[in-house]
Amino acid sequence: MSKLENTIAAVTGLDEEAMKQAAARQDQLTKPQGSLGVLEELSIRLAGIQGDPFPAIDRKVIIVMAGDHGVVAEGVSAFPQEVTPQMVANFVAGGAGINVLARHSGAEVRVVDMGVAANIDDPAVIDRKVKPGTDNMVEGPAMTRDEAIACLEAGIEIAEAEVDAGADLLGTGEMGIGNTTPSSAILTVFSGVGVEQATGRGTGIDNGALNVKREVIRRAIEVNRPDPDDGIDVLAKVGGLEIGGLAGVILGGAARRVPVIIDGFISGAAALVAARICPAARQYMIASHVSVEPGHKLILDELGLKPMLFMDMRLGEGTGAALAAGIVEASTRILAEMATFADAGVSEKTGEESSKQR
Amino acid sequence: MSKLENTIAAVTGLDEEAMKQAAARQDQLTKPQGSLGVLEELSIRLAGIQGDPFPAIDRKVIIVMAGDHGVVAEGVSAFPQEVTPQMVANFVAGGAGINVLARHSGAEVRVVDMGVAANIDDPAVIDRKVKPGTDNMVEGPAMTRDEAIACLEAGIEIAEAEVDAGADLLGTGEMGIGNTTPSSAILTVFSGVGVEQATGRGTGIDNGALNVKREVIRRAIEVNRPDPDDGIDVLAKVGGLEIGGLAGVILGGAARRVPVIIDGFISGAAALVAARICPAARQYMIASHVSVEPGHKLILDELGLKPMLFMDMRLGEGTGAALAAGIVEASTRILAEMATFADAGVSEKTGEESSKQR
Repeated sequence: MSKLENTIAAVTGLDEEAMKQAAARQDQLTKPQGSLGVLEELSIRLAGIQGDPFPAIDRKVIIVMAGDHGVVAEGVSAFPQEVTPQMVANFVAGGAGINVLARHSGAEVRVVDMGVAANIDDPAVIDRKVKPGTDNMVEGPAMTRDEAIACLEAGIEIAEAEVDAGADLLGTGEMGIGNTTPSSAILTVFSGVGVEQATGRGTGIDNGALNVKREVIRRAIEVNRPDPDDGIDVLAKVGGLEIGGLAGVILGGAARRVPVIIDGFISGAAALVAARICPAARQYMIASHVSVEPGHKLILDELGLKPMLFMDMRLGEGTGAALAAGIVEASTRILAEMATFADAGVSEKTGEESSKQR
Repeated sequence: MSKLENTIAAVTGLDEEAMKQAAARQDQLTKPQGSLGVLEELSIRLAGIQGDPFPAIDRKVIIVMAGDHGVVAEGVSAFPQEVTPQMVANFVAGGAGINVLARHSGAEVRVVDMGVAANIDDPAVIDRKVKPGTDNMVEGPAMTRDEAIACLEAGIEIAEAEVDAGADLLGTGEMGIGNTTPSSAILTVFSGVGVEQATGRGTGIDNGALNVKREVIRRAIEVNRPDPDDGIDVLAKVGGLEIGGLAGVILGGAARRVPVIIDGFISGAAALVAARICPAARQYMIASHVSVEPGHKLILDELGLKPMLFMDMRLGEGTGAALAAGIVEASTRILAEMATFADAGVSEKTGEESSKQR
């Protein structure tokens, strides 16, 4: 079997016994049962992922993948393509939003060149360039099927290397001028949502460019006819190199039983690809924020994921994932560090209702 | 003038010049303008609060105030009143939810006895007991007007002491069996929202007790006829000792130009009281999460505050404020640490639209 097939086969269900034990402990902690809401749910899911009733997060890594998009030739972005390598340099220098928020959350940042349309000659950038930018998807597929698989496998290998080095929480992030366009195309193909609803202003285009962007997406789907039941086909025809890499990171994390925080709209499109290729991987995905980009909420609904943060953000880079990483870590500390009713000598609920309130 | 009057008079507007400078810097940072949403807004508001275009958060303190409620005699809570002092002991021992989340956010916790109906003989608890629990508000006012003012002034003094000791971010938290009942009463009186919508299950009462709770709130309002234009009157007649203390903390923070993060439903009721007494204090309030308790969203709407976290929490204690404290701090780091387009050599937006996209 290929690397990809092996990885998909390795993604299995959560550890029900560990989850049961974690849930039972949550119910003994000094609070009304269920009153920490998503923090409780997260801690229980992490128990299932790690196979440990006391899950712990010791090393958080945000993987930021960069790639360019041939479709920018159609005028779909407010920024010029040269910004992609410039921002890669900014990530390495530590001056971008993701660097600040990752430092604040105690997370490390990895920067990966999946397909920047410029030479990135920096040893601090992991070189997994599949090609220097996708082809223009209105003229044919963004990449070949083999290239799509190469992106996925690069992401899997990067996730594996991070897990081998001790990462127990991964987050996705990306940079790529034009990459909301393939993301909207992916959402449209997978969900059946109309192009109008799936497409927003990205980094901030005006109404004229928004109409162009929508028309470009319609044409790309018409020209390429991606098969919505085949995640690799959709990725190849209307996807992106960094999107494929991130889908691979999600699959690689899931196969190694490490949760992956999904950042914003583009990361969400990668999560859709990963979920179509391997539905079981969804259990390892944690939603972070909901973006201003209107398709993001639709993606989260499609994935059945509930965002924690409503911050009107739309930067990408993994910024939402970095903010959420601290909250995910907090959930494990609640489980491990809170006193039980018995420990603290606190009285439990009166009456007979206590077991029904969850 | 009294302490309270002096404090109200000291709450002034934000520093517009510092806000303008912070906003101008946000627009030069390496991201599409406005793309960090609430993080940008927070950093700009903090600049206005601190009077510094580079606001900083160095010391975060969550003030957890405890008080009991005579109205529990009516059967409005799922937990017995003895839990209030038991949880105070748990706070001091470091085993409660707020302790864990404050440690995680790097915040300190202060525990204040505003009116627990038991002797709290612990030097680690700040003793500002106004009386051992409110009177039963269905039989008359919960406290006298003088007692309400004493609560407010205790809160002001505690905020002042923390600010004097270096706190530059305060958060509110509370503990008091039965305290969603006065909070729902306060919301009803101030907002005109019906008792049905303003009243929820608190720590988890069943349908029968929920009906009792609603009837109790209706009777308390009918018996006491609090004047919605007089925040002190509402606090005295249908409020709580810890609620008054927290309203004082908010006023004291605002008067010293320190932002105050509002936790959940009960803290929100305290914020309503503070805003009625001193409308200018609203500019110093930062919303954290939105609680499962249905009245909380109504309170935030009434205050014009937008929550960041949607975590289905309903514990109180300051747990939402502690989670949000890390995000508020992150906003200042974005402003201080991100590179500008010029610093990083990143190209700005193409075309003529760039100044209009905010």
